[in-house]
Amino acid sequence: MSTPQVIGIDFGGTSVKLAVIEGSELLTDVTRIPTQEFDGAEPLIEAIVKKVWKLRQSFPQVGAIGIGVPGVVDISKGVTYNLTNVKGWSSVPLRDLIFEKSGLPIAMDNDANCMAYAEFKYGAGQGFRNVVCVTLGTGVGGGLILNGELYRGRQHAAGEIGQMSIDFNGIEGPYGNSGSLERYIGNRQIEAMAAGLYRERGVNLPEDHTPEGLTSLAQNGDPVALEVWDRVSTCLAANLMSTIYLLNPDAVIIGGGVAHAGDLLFEPLKRKLRESLANEFFDHLSVLHARFGNTAGLVGCSAIAADLL
Amino acid sequence: MSTPQVIGIDFGGTSVKLAVIEGSELLTDVTRIPTQEFDGAEPLIEAIVKKVWKLRQSFPQVGAIGIGVPGVVDISKGVTYNLTNVKGWSSVPLRDLIFEKSGLPIAMDNDANCMAYAEFKYGAGQGFRNVVCVTLGTGVGGGLILNGELYRGRQHAAGEIGQMSIDFNGIEGPYGNSGSLERYIGNRQIEAMAAGLYRERGVNLPEDHTPEGLTSLAQNGDPVALEVWDRVSTCLAANLMSTIYLLNPDAVIIGGGVAHAGDLLFEPLKRKLRESLANEFFDHLSVLHARFGNTAGLVGCSAIAADLL
Repeated sequence: MSTPQVIGIDFGGTSVKLAVIEGSELLTDVTRIPTQEFDGAEPLIEAIVKKVWKLRQSFPQVGAIGIGVPGVVDISKGVTYNLTNVKGWSSVPLRDLIFEKSGLPIAMDNDANCMAYAEFKYGAGQGFRNVVCVTLGTGVGGGLILNGELYRGRQHAAGEIGQMSIDFNGIEGPYGNSGSLERYIGNRQIEAMAAGLYRERGVNLPEDHTPEGLTSLAQNGDPVALEVWDRVSTCLAANLMSTIYLLNPDAVIIGGGVAHAGDLLFEPLKRKLRESLANEFFDHLSVLHARFGNTAGLVGCSAIAADLL
Repeated sequence: MSTPQVIGIDFGGTSVKLAVIEGSELLTDVTRIPTQEFDGAEPLIEAIVKKVWKLRQSFPQVGAIGIGVPGVVDISKGVTYNLTNVKGWSSVPLRDLIFEKSGLPIAMDNDANCMAYAEFKYGAGQGFRNVVCVTLGTGVGGGLILNGELYRGRQHAAGEIGQMSIDFNGIEGPYGNSGSLERYIGNRQIEAMAAGLYRERGVNLPEDHTPEGLTSLAQNGDPVALEVWDRVSTCLAANLMSTIYLLNPDAVIIGGGVAHAGDLLFEPLKRKLRESLANEFFDHLSVLHARFGNTAGLVGCSAIAADLL
């Protein structure tokens, strides 16, 4: 049985990306449709459908469409909510609208689940049965593969690692959730942590103290930047320890921009997990860097759609 | 199809309990074999097997045996470790030993999983697909039903809610796990919390400040005892909030001796969950008291064994 060809549609903050995908391979360049050019949901969807038809002319064997969206999605109804940057987008029955105009079977899921499925099927998670995936970026997201399947929970909202608490007296999250992990190690929070720490240590704050800048600085031996990464790893380890005690996974896979810190993050993280986990939780645990970067969403939603065929 | 009859064997701290069970109904009284009367694993197992034969004479239709054990169990090999109070018990192939002498199919699992399965199949969790079960006693344990099945994880160790952290700078747990929930709301920790709080408030410490005593006191309006239960609910809510953001379950079921506090614990707990969970996590969530008490282990291990038939 050959791997089916699928059109992946990945809704991002600033653009919608499309490509034809076979397994984990992109058969086309990625087309980007900038969302802010459109006056509402309807013209944007029209532009997407037009592009879908064009791709199908070149790839007539395409058998399904995968859609990845940020935030909450009701996958049973195929409805998305509050797409940021798209005016008038609230509660749009995206799946039905695109199905009507394409006639192809459609799978839709949120971006963190797509990333997790991409890694499980074709990336760092291949061959594992229970995988916790974390994305570290502006927000902290997560997706779970349990018993070899994407686990979604009651309202398809499972995997919200960024909202879990690392301190019940800690910084308040967006839902009154004290100690929300995202409020410690989201992109901007890392920058703020760095600003505070450089001040505390009496060292001038480097102009570029983004996670990327802090990675370069730490790689060049900057002691304060190293301390920042150690603190980030402490917060992440606190969460992952709890997640691992709950789920006893085979692997934890970490992706997103912040994960580009590489060993600066992974080495202290693994040490802290070893120091806080009972043997049966740590001995067979793999802590891995995600394989897919920007294409995780496209590959993942396409893989979920390919399972429909 | 009629419900099969099963012999349940529940290993506890001080005794092994046996009964014949059909569904959730005990067809016999519970027999107790006190573990400390035995000089090692072999004579204890002999006594158990003798009792099994006796039960089978009265119930010849018994088709399987369910075994519940505390702590870590390797269910693929049927081996248990470190049964407390039994001399010379380390790494005992319990399943094979009892199978050899009974010829019946045997299911074995740890007590928290047995409790979770009992509640899912016949108790407060009936009809739900994703259930988090917590037992509050000397230790804090947990079991997970995900997608309608007992979820065990890589090393069959999942559900260790008591080892999850509520504070990454908090009290250290047995594995170097800072903020371990068990170190805040285990039985003895609640007593210690009460002792501290009565002292702080300048009130004489009541002689009975066990969880049971504190429940009576609070029910009679003792303000310090009420404060203790509020603090316990804060710690439990901190964990459950995280667990719910990760798993988006249909229901959380709480059992064990400490749960006898009832509304004193459940009311503030539910309020705190409502105040810290996003709608899609709280709106359809049931927070329930466990149905089974002391018999949860027997009913659960028997239900797991009945599934073999």
